[in-house]
Parts: sequence; structure tokens; C-alpha cells
Amino acid sequence: MAISVFDHPFLSGLFGDDEIVSRFTAEADVGAMLSFEAHLARAEAEEGIIDPESAEAIESACGTLVPDMDALRAATGRDGVVVAELVRQLRAAVGEPHASKVHFGATSQDVIDTSLSLRLMPVLQVLKERLDQLDDALDELDRRFGANPLMGRTRMQAAIAMTVGDRLAEWRRPLLRRLAEFEEVQRSAIAMQFGGPVGTLDKLGGKGERVRKRLSDLLGLEDAETWHSERDRLVGLADWFSLVSGSLGKFGQDVALMAQNGIDEIALSGGGGSSAMAHKHNPVGAEILVTLARFNAVQISAMHQAMVHEQERSGAAWSLEWMVLPQIVAATGASLRIALDLACAVQRIGSDSR
Amino acid sequence: MAISVFDHPFLSGLFGDDEIVSRFTAEADVGAMLSFEAHLARAEAEEGIIDPESAEAIESACGTLVPDMDALRAATGRDGVVVAELVRQLRAAVGEPHASKVHFGATSQDVIDTSLSLRLMPVLQVLKERLDQLDDALDELDRRFGANPLMGRTRMQAAIAMTVGDRLAEWRRPLLRRLAEFEEVQRSAIAMQFGGPVGTLDKLGGKGERVRKRLSDLLGLEDAETWHSERDRLVGLADWFSLVSGSLGKFGQDVALMAQNGIDEIALSGGGGSSAMAHKHNPVGAEILVTLARFNAVQISAMHQAMVHEQERSGAAWSLEWMVLPQIVAATGASLRIALDLACAVQRIGSDSR
Amino acid sequence: MAISVFDHPFLSGLFGDDEIVSRFTAEADVGAMLSFEAHLARAEAEEGIIDPESAEAIESACGTLVPDMDALRAATGRDGVVVAELVRQLRAAVGEPHASKVHFGATSQDVIDTSLSLRLMPVLQVLKERLDQLDDALDELDRRFGANPLMGRTRMQAAIAMTVGDRLAEWRRPLLRRLAEFEEVQRSAIAMQFGGPVGTLDKLGGKGERVRKRLSDLLGLEDAETWHSERDRLVGLADWFSLVSGSLGKFGQDVALMAQNGIDEIALSGGGGSSAMAHKHNPVGAEILVTLARFNAVQISAMHQAMVHEQERSGAAWSLEWMVLPQIVAATGASLRIALDLACAVQRIGSDSR
Amino acid sequence: MAISVFDHPFLSGLFGDDEIVSRFTAEADVGAMLSFEAHLARAEAEEGIIDPESAEAIESACGTLVPDMDALRAATGRDGVVVAELVRQLRAAVGEPHASKVHFGATSQDVIDTSLSLRLMPVLQVLKERLDQLDDALDELDRRFGANPLMGRTRMQAAIAMTVGDRLAEWRRPLLRRLAEFEEVQRSAIAMQFGGPVGTLDKLGGKGERVRKRLSDLLGLEDAETWHSERDRLVGLADWFSLVSGSLGKFGQDVALMAQNGIDEIALSGGGGSSAMAHKHNPVGAEILVTLARFNAVQISAMHQAMVHEQERSGAAWSLEWMVLPQIVAATGASLRIALDLACAVQRIGSDSR
Repeated sequence: MAISVFDHPFLSGLFGDDEIVSRFTAEADVGAMLSFEAHLARAEAEEGIIDPESAEAIESACGTLVPDMDALRAATGRDGVVVAELVRQLRAAVGEPHASKVHFGATSQDVIDTSLSLRLMPVLQVLKERLDQLDDALDELDRRFGANPLMGRTRMQAAIAMTVGDRLAEWRRPLLRRLAEFEEVQRSAIAMQFGGPVGTLDKLGGKGERVRKRLSDLLGLEDAETWHSERDRLVGLADWFSLVSGSLGKFGQDVALMAQNGIDEIALSGGGGSSAMAHKHNPVGAEILVTLARFNAVQISAMHQAMVHEQERSGAAWSLEWMVLPQIVAATGASLRIALDLACAVQRIGSDSR
Repeated sequence: MAISVFDHPFLSGLFGDDEIVSRFTAEADVGAMLSFEAHLARAEAEEGIIDPESAEAIESACGTLVPDMDALRAATGRDGVVVAELVRQLRAAVGEPHASKVHFGATSQDVIDTSLSLRLMPVLQVLKERLDQLDDALDELDRRFGANPLMGRTRMQAAIAMTVGDRLAEWRRPLLRRLAEFEEVQRSAIAMQFGGPVGTLDKLGGKGERVRKRLSDLLGLEDAETWHSERDRLVGLADWFSLVSGSLGKFGQDVALMAQNGIDEIALSGGGGSSAMAHKHNPVGAEILVTLARFNAVQISAMHQAMVHEQERSGAAWSLEWMVLPQIVAATGASLRIALDLACAVQRIGSDSR
Repeated sequence: MAISVFDHPFLSGLFGDDEIVSRFTAEADVGAMLSFEAHLARAEAEEGIIDPESAEAIESACGTLVPDMDALRAATGRDGVVVAELVRQLRAAVGEPHASKVHFGATSQDVIDTSLSLRLMPVLQVLKERLDQLDDALDELDRRFGANPLMGRTRMQAAIAMTVGDRLAEWRRPLLRRLAEFEEVQRSAIAMQFGGPVGTLDKLGGKGERVRKRLSDLLGLEDAETWHSERDRLVGLADWFSLVSGSLGKFGQDVALMAQNGIDEIALSGGGGSSAMAHKHNPVGAEILVTLARFNAVQISAMHQAMVHEQERSGAAWSLEWMVLPQIVAATGASLRIALDLACAVQRIGSDSR
Repeated sequence: MAISVFDHPFLSGLFGDDEIVSRFTAEADVGAMLSFEAHLARAEAEEGIIDPESAEAIESACGTLVPDMDALRAATGRDGVVVAELVRQLRAAVGEPHASKVHFGATSQDVIDTSLSLRLMPVLQVLKERLDQLDDALDELDRRFGANPLMGRTRMQAAIAMTVGDRLAEWRRPLLRRLAEFEEVQRSAIAMQFGGPVGTLDKLGGKGERVRKRLSDLLGLEDAETWHSERDRLVGLADWFSLVSGSLGKFGQDVALMAQNGIDEIALSGGGGSSAMAHKHNPVGAEILVTLARFNAVQISAMHQAMVHEQERSGAAWSLEWMVLPQIVAATGASLRIALDLACAVQRIGSDSR
């Protein structure tokens, strides 16, 4: 199986990113969804919505449930979402008299959107660490080669002389801007979703906001008013991902141009072999950075389209996010991983005529 | 594992399409690549390029090789393509003195592009059959409900009365246009690729064209001059896929609008359940047709971008196709499967006031 | 005024294309819309729907009407389409007793879509001629430089030697495929639209089809069943445009790479000057071919999105076409113009070591 | 002339936005470019780079120059940028002995990018004011109709009852998020560009940074290190524009659905007329909000693609921004204008059964 390069048996060697992809497995998703249901029960018990005994039974079942994946699959095909069936299985595991307290006042979207936030949180930390590491690696290149002369090139023609440090600065500044934005992006994009069927938490009487606040504390997520039909949060996050991969695409494109025979402005260790030409050392990583930048630049369009989200829940627009956002995340992760490898593979930039 | 909805353990219940997805597994790809190598050896033996004994040894090994997937994965990460390592494993299996005749005169792209063509051929047949079935199903709806009155609606406002048959015709005509184009699309898009490192078949002396012709016959593919850096063939095919899913998106959007409470122009059996609202019957399939149309409408941009394919092989542009084209195919397959289900779920269209 | 590079006072020097752009002026559109109304009246008179006197009065007024553009502008803002106001002005010009016969049985979309077809027809001829000229120019380059050696390059690394003719063939084959498709593309994409408010020609009784046939003959357009909500025809045409510009983007990218200092595989006359560096000769045309290819590769997504055209007329989806299709046409025209200039500016390709 | 709906003689009635479009005329651009040159001379004189007399002569000429647009157009076609010719004309106007001090140390990109920033600054203020006004208008609707019951709808099916205020909140919250981001977006996106040919201000010796700082003060723009090849600033701004229009697209889609005959959840004054059906009142503005959202969702892809900006200046990637960014700005402006009109046209939302 593998329509996707990100978890393809052999293409994942090029595009994959285990640390990121592991957050988007069905198991990770189910785990996060059950965590939502367990903490929801706890929060509702603390606010007196359900009995403590119900909450205990639900938390216990969430901790041990091994879902019937085939049933989840069939139900998703029918319902368009997995949650109704997952809740059914969870209720069966909880048993009477507490079963009816499972998922109380919540809706499918609360579970799915919050599961996503729970998994994006650690992903963002990984990406931030890689941004830091990449900046360090480029800084190291600056120390080693920054003073080397390099021909500045505009419109693909030699312009005037500059230094390797000038080029390195072009690669680094956008990354530093992304790092500077990081806290705010994380805060504004990653939030709990809890609103019930149409966002009004109608079953919780006047206690909706308190339960939501309590639940957000338990889950370690930013509390937020319902955003079930307001997808700008996730789109802004996707934009940030594509800003990362886009700038790395420029880095890759520059490296591929510098590595051309006849230009020879950079020397790289490793490099890909060819099935037909044993002498070649292809700058594969540099090329794939361009690929990933262009891939995200395409996918971002789908996220922006998905803002046209009709009424209180658009099956059409919401499902489009599912098809695209995990890929954007994975592509960005791969892009940072490959950029770091590429920076570390540099043996020389510019001429050595110091 | 499952970044992709198409082979996700439970989301594939909604988006999956086993008949299509099975053509994009690593196993199917490796199988087709080995078929290329086996038939290449045969063709080269028949044209006197290699010995018959070599060809037999190669064909035999291709039939039995069980590749080391871990090694393929690692090599793909290094080389950017799987072929150099696959050929290495195949040569080891063939052994001396024939090993050097494996992959003779070919390059990675010949193997990968031709493998794609070999797998797209049966996919296209499946899609054609589904188009025929869908047209039949819509024809049946026409027989049953075509004479029913239906309010024509423009700019989302009631316009003037028409019939269900008029609406059905809007859904059918684009599908009939796709069927009318089918033979030509298949012929122009699905072709063998065989050109060697830079498209010149330099190692085959004057016999390149004859080997290519012979190989195309053996593989059952259209013979074609090398198109390694000319990606318009595949882009035209992707366009056709998206034309299919786009027209089905209109079908889905119309059905979702007709099924609204208060409009009630269509009655559907089945319909998705809700985790919070037992009374709901959501037109899930109709919505997902919209999703898939918009998904392909986004992905098609990547295919058109990939035509800017520099020199004799662009790792950057070619890899972008790998990320996107299988998804376009799978989305189109799912779109036709869901449209057929939806057409069969119709219990009534228009008012019954006949 | 000039949001658009295509008719910007100075950017049009780079991106403009008078021969194409002139077909998309308001005047050209109004002229074609009036031509539709005039010929509709004639056709309806010939089929006995309206009196010959009415037809004469309408044809005469169509030939002389100078529309009040300010009123057209204001009305378009209110109605979303220009036609209601244009018909009002035309009816005022026709006067009683024939005024009510103007636009009889037609709807706005009939006028606007057919006007587009009328103007696309000559545009396609221009593009075809340029494709022929460009192929001739590349053929001439083949005669002059085809035998020159050229390093084949894959993954931006030197691969093995080939000839300039091999590279030229990569540039030409896609253009020849577009030319081979030309007649069929034109036939399937450029058609009259005539269906009345919801496509049923309800006001014409049983004579709708005959009027439509007659009208198509008068207008010199392919007759076609109504396609008001089936936008695949225009999307297929847009695909063809982008296939042209995409292949030319590869040509431009290759030329820009060949023209690099240190590579020097091509010599071009002319070339752009710099405000800061007098020594530079930038391969501007080559770069803009890449720009135009990527521009169309983006815009094509909008056309595919617009296939999700709800019910009998989607103001939302139809208007999206208006925003994008003329730009795709203009970009393709500019792309061919620039490619032809670039091909003619070639002084040398490959090394002269014959 | 009018390829573009934004400055089309009659389509601009629907899509136009004089307040925004006026910033993107050739005249406005030339004016801002001359302002750059005048202030550059002043700044360089203040830092002792050029003589005060030269600065005075240059400032004077910048204030009176009426450029030869035909020559600008021809030169743009040749050079790919307008600046070399504009500087030539300016130097001719300045005359000897000061002519050589015009544009000293600067490059085309400095002039063009800074001109863009100078014009985006007031555009952003206009958009902010409209966001404020729209929020006020929605607040007023909340006061008038917020308590009205409204059926919450999910997956295009009636779900459970809520209030008009709940729906209004879904429309407002994204706009409030955009307003909250406004200062930071403006600060990070709108900056002076001044770097000379390759970003190193090589001609200004050690005084480059001081001149840049001085120039930014004179121009009233954020000082910034050179960002000539780092286009993430503008991409982030374009993202913000599309976030605005995307959320308004949801507003428009909801209104169009609410206005359907048979649903009747909203009453609007005005509404577009039809050329064929006098009884219709089409929710044209609502539809166009969807159009503009989808348009920007497509265009945003081009901006992200343009981050792959090779070396110190990519003619290909930079020109792509020119084709797209002004349209994104204009579409966002029109979107806010139309949304405000639409909010003011609301006569009733929900049922009046209070």
C-alpha cells in the first residue's frame, strides 16, 4: 500500500519522516481521540455534569480500548467521520450504566479537530528544533566559508562579486523570521475545539464554557471559543509550514545551481548514484527541497479553498483539509530534515582562494 | 501509517479504492519494473544486442526476485530513485556472466516511467467501466424520474420549471464527452518510455529504435519516441482525470443542495449518521464528490508546474509528479465509485406529482 | 489603470500581446454580444418565431448601438452580469413595436458564453499560426546547429554527450502534439451556447433546436446542446493553453540554464540591460517563459475548481472563469510570442567544434 | 483594454475597487519609484555620499518628470524591468553634472520593491478600516437579529436550533483575528528594500546601513536588511489577504444558502436582476464573495511558488509576483467592499418569531 510518498515502502526513504509521520497514523489519531473522550468525562465530572463514577469508567475504558479498525473503516465510509462508531465501541466497552455519559455534549468535529491539535503540538516542537539545528548548521558554514568570495548572480547571469556569507544570510534570514513567529503561530493555530453539534454546547446548560476551560487545561491546549466552521486557524498554520518549505526550496535551488559542472561553487559529500552513469554524484537533496517547496505551494491552495466552509459544518470543506494538511506537515518535516542533511554535507562553498 | 486518506486504516473507508490503490503499491511498482527489465532483455536478445542466454537468465531472475525493501528504501533516500539499487539486486540474482547485461542501455527513468504506464493501463480500463456503469445508472434514473418536474435554479434562486431529465442531462453529458475521448486519451498518454541516460539510446548503436519497438510490443504499450523530459503526456492524462472528478463534483454539489431540508428535491437511501444527532441522514457521498473535485483541481496545478522540467531529467520536477499523480488517479477512482453508489442510492428525484 | 500585467502601460511591453488582448476588450465583447443578438433575431425570424421586420430592426440597431458604458458598469455591479442592461439599451434603440423581440428566449449566459466562443475562435487561429512559426524556427535552429555537440544534463549534472538536435527535439515534440490536437480541441471547446434561462429553450416551443442550429450556422460556430452548467469544454481548452505554455516554460528554463556564465551553451542576441550593471545581458525572454508557464499552472486550478458549478447557473463558479480564462489566453499568447522571439535571437547553440 | 476584471470597463462594476486599484496604476508606480530616487539622493547627500547640489537637482527632477511611457514600455519588454529606462529618462532630466548621481548604489529591485511597499502601506489602512466597518455592521446585525432563532445546519442538513447571533459570531471571529494580527502583519511585511545589485550595497562603502536607515526614515517605511531574494515577507502578506477573503467567502456562501427559495433565512434589499426572469432577485454579492475567496485561494499558490527564487535575483520568480500580487490585493479589497454592502443590505435574518 502506498499512494503517498510519505509512507511508501521505498519512496519514504526519500520523502519520509518517521518522527512526523508517526503522529498521523490511525493509531495516533485514535489514541488522541480517546484521550479527548477521557478528559472530557473528567472535566464534566469536575463540573458536575456527569457522575465521578461515570468519568472513572470512561477514563478506564479509554485507556484499554483496542478499537475494531475494520468497523471504524466501514463506518467512516458510511458516516463520513469515524467518531460515531468509535463512540459506539467505547460505549460498549464502558457498559451500563455509564455508557450514555460517553461523548456527552460533544460532536464528531470536537473529537477530530482536538485530536489534530493534540498531535500537531509535538510536531511543532520537532520542527522548531530542526529550524534551530539548521540555523546552527548554516552558522557553522558561515564560520568556515563565509569569507570566501562568491559571484553574485542575478537573472541567472554573473552580476558582481560578494561573499559566501552574503548568500548564507539569504538562506538564514527567512528561517529566523519563522523562529521569531513560532510562539505566536503555535498559540493562535493550535487550540482545543469543543462546541457540540453546532458550536453552542447546548447540552451543557450554562456550564459549557467552564467545561471547555477545564478540558483545555487537562489536555494542555489553548482554550478557545468554538472554531468549528472557522478554519483560518489551520490555514494560518499551513501557511507557516509552506513559508518554511518555500524558503528551503530557495536553498535547494541555489545549491543545485552551485553544484552544476562548470559552475562548481559548492562541494557536497555523498550525492546520489545513477543506474546508468557511475560517474555522477547528483545533488538529490537539493532537488527534493525544490520539489517539496513546490508541493506545499500547491497544497496550500486547498487549505485556502477549505475556508469556504458552509454553515455549521461542511463535510466537503472539512474533508478536504484531511486530504491535504497531513501531507503539508509531512512535507515540511521532510524539507527540514533534508535541508539539515544538505547543510551538513557541504564540504566547501565558494572558492578557496582566501 | 497513513498520511494519505487513500490508504489510511479507517479513512480509506471513505476515500479508498482498492482496485485503483492496488496498482500503486510498492509491490505492484517493483513487479512492473522487473517486467520492464525482463522484456528489455528479451527484446535486446531478439535484436542481437545481448545473448539469448543472458536474456533467459535475466527473465528468470526477474520472475523470482524478492527485493530487499529496506535496501531499496535506503538507496532511494540516497539516489533519489530506486532503480540503481533494484538493478544491483537483480544483477546479484542473475549472477555472472550475465549480470552486466541487466538494464543494458536503459536508465532509471525508462524503468520508472514505463512501470507507471504499465499500471495506468488497467487503471484506465477500470475507470472506463465505471464511467459506463455510471452513465447506465443515470440513464435508469432518467427512465424512472426523468419526467418529474423540477425547479430550475440559477444563482441559487428558483428560476423556471424544468424536468428531472433536464438536470440529469447536465450530469451525463460531460461523462459522455469523457467516454468519447477515452481511446485518444489512452493512446496519447500511456506510452512506453525508453531512451537511456539522456534519451539517445546511445549504447544501442543503430538498433535503438528497433529494440524500443520490440520492447513496446512485448509490453503491450504504445511505442513512442523518448518523452523523458516532455511531461505533457502525463499532464494531459491528469487533466482528463480532473475533468472526470470535476464534473462529478457538480453532480455531488447538486445532490447536496437538492437534499437540503426545506428543499427536498431528492430522497436517498442510507446516508451518514452523526455522533451527536441520531435523526440526521447526511448526504456524505455527495459532499465527498465535491471534496474530491476540489482536491484534484488543486493537484492538477502541480502536474502543470512539473512541465518546467529542466534539461534531460529534472529530479525536482519528476519527483513532484510522484507525489501527486497517484493521488489524482486514486481520487478519480474514488469519485467514480462514490458517484455510482450515490446514483444507486436515489429513491426519488423531483416531485412525484406525475 | 492596470492591475494586470497584460494591459499595463509599461509592463505590457513584457507580458502584453496586442493581437490577443484586443479580443478581450469591453468593446470586442460588446460587439460579439450584439452580433449574437442580431443573428438570434435573424434565426428566429427564419424559423417563424419573430417577424422579419422585428429581425431587421434588431439587426440594424445591433449594427449601430454605442452602448452607455457607465450604465453597463453600474448594472453589472448590481446584476452580476452585463446583459440585462445591454438588452435594455438595445431595446430602447430598437424601439416599439419590436423591442420585446430582442433577446427573445435567450438568457444572459447564452450571450456571454457565445461571445466568448466568437472571440476565442480567431485567438486560436493566431496561436496555431505561432505554433507553426515556432516549430519552423526550431527546425531552422536544427538545420544550423543540430549537429553540434551538447552535454546532456540530468539532475543538473553533466551526464553524457548528445547533440543540439536531441535537445531541440525535446522542445519541439510537445508543440507538435499540440498542433496535432488542434482541430479536435477547437471543435470540442468552441461551441455556441443557447439554452435560455435554464437550458430548456422553453420559450421557443418545439423549435428550439432548429433555431439553435440556424444560429450556429449564422455565427460560424459549432452547434452544441446547451452546456451552460457543464464547464468541462472550457476547462479542456484551458488545459490545452497551459500545456502549450508549460512546454515553453521548459524551453525557457533550458535556455536560461544554457546561457549561464560558465556554461555558455547558447549565445543570444539582444538580452536585457540592468540599471546597475552595464555589462549584463540578461536572458529575459527565457525567464519570462518560465514565469508564464508557472502562472498558467496556477490559474488552471481555478478553471478546474469552476467545474463545481451548482444547479443551472452558478454565479460564483461562472464569475471565477471570467477572472481567470482571459489571463490564461493572454499568457499563452505572450508565451508563444516570446518563445518565437527567443528562438530567433539564438546566435549559437552548443559548441562550434564541428 | 481589459484582460482583468478589476479594471474592465464594465466588469469593474462588479469586481472593481477604485480606492485599491488606484494604487496599482502605472502612474502611481512611477510616482513611488521617483519618490524612492528623490529620497535616496537626499539620504545619500545627508550621509556624504553625493553632493547636496546633486541631491537637490535629483529631487527637483523627480518632482517634475513626466516619463515617456512608450519608451518605458519598450524598455520593459527588452530589460524585463522598467527601471533602467526610467533612470535614463531621469538622468536626462537631471542633466550634467549630477546625472551620474541618480540611482547611485541602487538596483532595479530596490526601486520596484520599495515602490510596492510605499503603495501597500495606504492599501493596508483602507483594508483595516473596512474590516472595522464590517465588524461594526455585523455587530449591528447582532443587535437587531441576534436573538432570532436559526436552524443550525451541518453537512447541509438541519441539525439543531441555535440563534442568529451564533451564526454571526462564526462570521465575525475570523475578522477579529485578522484585525488583531494587523499591526504585526504590516510591520513584518511592508519594509524598505535597499541592497544594490546583489544586496551588499557595495558602492556605499561602510555607509550602506546608515543610508538605508536614513532612507527608510524619509520614506516612512520599516527599515530592514535586504530581502531581495527572500520573498517570504510578501508571501506572508498575501496569506493574510487570502485569510480575509477566505473568511468572507464563508460569509457569502452562508448568505447564498440562507437566501434560497424554500429556506428563506435571510432577506436582502436590492439583489441582481436577470435578463430573462424579471421575478428574480439574485444574491449577487454573496456569490461574488465565494468567487473572490476561491480566486485568492488559487492565486496564493503562485506567491508560495515564487519563494523558490534562485540566487540573488530571479527574473522568473519575481515577475510571477507582479502578475499575481496586485490581483490578490484588489480581490481582497473588493471582497471587503462587497461584504460591507451585503451586511448593510440585510433586512432580516432568521425568523421573526420573537
